[in-house]
Amino acid sequence: MVMTIQQWVNGKAVSELSLQDRGLSYGHGVFETLRIAGGKLLLWPEHLERLLAGCQRLSIPTQWLAEQLQQEMAALPSVEDGVLKIIVTAGEGGRGYRLPVQPSPTRILQLMPVPVYPDLPAEHGIEARWCQIRLACAPALAGIKHLNRLEQVLARAEWADEHIREGILCGQDGYLAEGTMSNLFLVYDGVLITPDLHDYGVAGIMRQHLMALAGSAGISVEVKKLQPKDLLGADEVFFCNSLIGIWPLRLLEQQVFIPGPVTRRLQALLTESYCAC
Amino acid sequence: MVMTIQQWVNGKAVSELSLQDRGLSYGHGVFETLRIAGGKLLLWPEHLERLLAGCQRLSIPTQWLAEQLQQEMAALPSVEDGVLKIIVTAGEGGRGYRLPVQPSPTRILQLMPVPVYPDLPAEHGIEARWCQIRLACAPALAGIKHLNRLEQVLARAEWADEHIREGILCGQDGYLAEGTMSNLFLVYDGVLITPDLHDYGVAGIMRQHLMALAGSAGISVEVKKLQPKDLLGADEVFFCNSLIGIWPLRLLEQQVFIPGPVTRRLQALLTESYCAC
Repeated sequence: MVMTIQQWVNGKAVSELSLQDRGLSYGHGVFETLRIAGGKLLLWPEHLERLLAGCQRLSIPTQWLAEQLQQEMAALPSVEDGVLKIIVTAGEGGRGYRLPVQPSPTRILQLMPVPVYPDLPAEHGIEARWCQIRLACAPALAGIKHLNRLEQVLARAEWADEHIREGILCGQDGYLAEGTMSNLFLVYDGVLITPDLHDYGVAGIMRQHLMALAGSAGISVEVKKLQPKDLLGADEVFFCNSLIGIWPLRLLEQQVFIPGPVTRRLQALLTESYCAC
Repeated sequence: MVMTIQQWVNGKAVSELSLQDRGLSYGHGVFETLRIAGGKLLLWPEHLERLLAGCQRLSIPTQWLAEQLQQEMAALPSVEDGVLKIIVTAGEGGRGYRLPVQPSPTRILQLMPVPVYPDLPAEHGIEARWCQIRLACAPALAGIKHLNRLEQVLARAEWADEHIREGILCGQDGYLAEGTMSNLFLVYDGVLITPDLHDYGVAGIMRQHLMALAGSAGISVEVKKLQPKDLLGADEVFFCNSLIGIWPLRLLEQQVFIPGPVTRRLQALLTESYCAC
């Protein structure tokens, strides 16, 4: 059990970062948030793959990155249960927005306790609301878990009620996108459907993992443009990310939803997949 | 003359920032880049006003900010000529994207030498190119000089040729927006025109200052949606920001432009305005 936050920068136990880092100046970096459970780092290969892909899209060199991260993570204290946040930035330097000729990425590891939810949202479902802000259509950045997260900050600032656990975002084009901190799935007649993220949103590792689990279990999966009214008419709705797993939607403003059989089956498949990995 | 970078965080001379700062995690902050010339901080009231307005739009408390910044800036070493970058972030804390109940902003000051351009771009004009990436339509963030600058990083990464000093960006809607690090003005029949920034872009202090100077000098000014072909047909084109002042466009890919009388007059008015302030 991790009790407080422990942090490392490029393998050194420190709690600060250079003011010259492009992660601060421009949000020029990516991050991953991983769950550690039963002493295992869940879905690490998938998180690493996305992290490297994000770096490549942002011109952050990756040739030594996987090896360096593996080394630094192997040196972490042994933990049964916790959260590991990994940030990789483009490092220091460059003239203005321009990258330096040989960027030297900064690797940040943060080991934290798992958030506790005494009201068991995975079991009982959560209350959610619609967000007013719409995600900009930005195909060059869509899918990447990058450090430019002001839209999520503004979305989360739209409500203060502690009972509301998630806000649902649409894109500028009016289609469904995701939650402020999660991806979104609908179930229609036994088919699992998640919004297309070509233009905005974070292509979540849990989203990808659940699609694979569903496919293997014979549940049909579709990725497509969805309208807000599609959500209102769905048989089941749930949110997911690597920390929370699956949280069913129970109440959206005035409308009641019932956590249904496909959601429950995916929760069970998810737990099994953890045991197997 | 500043020779190397000097830095302060909340009034202390340090070179690092907490890894927990929301400026790093989410780009939750704003910045200003000011020119110091002849020992004077140019256009400081205007920069301060935009900084406070940006903070308010991002839910960063401003009640003590102006006073704190003034105090910390009064304690800076006396400098004849330099660049002052001010970053204000939402500070540490919060649960995920959610702001802490009482955010405590982080104030960063960075005092740097003025970049030197031996080829006198203000006099001779510059070479520019079109950028492929388009700025996302994001009205909730448009105009703010915030720390989410990945679009500019990607735009600036589109070329390496040292002779090309600026790239011109359009929005997702196809209209002209700005340069990667500057605002854009066209001149048509003696009228000064700059792109509307309702949906994207940074509402530059130099842009605003030049519009005011032009207005006072009897030059008509228009802010409107402009197409790329409008730029190609303009009598004069120039870029501006608080550091470079005014850089006329001389060459855009194959097309030659001539720094013209309105551009020259504004350069003169700008120099006069500095002497007067």
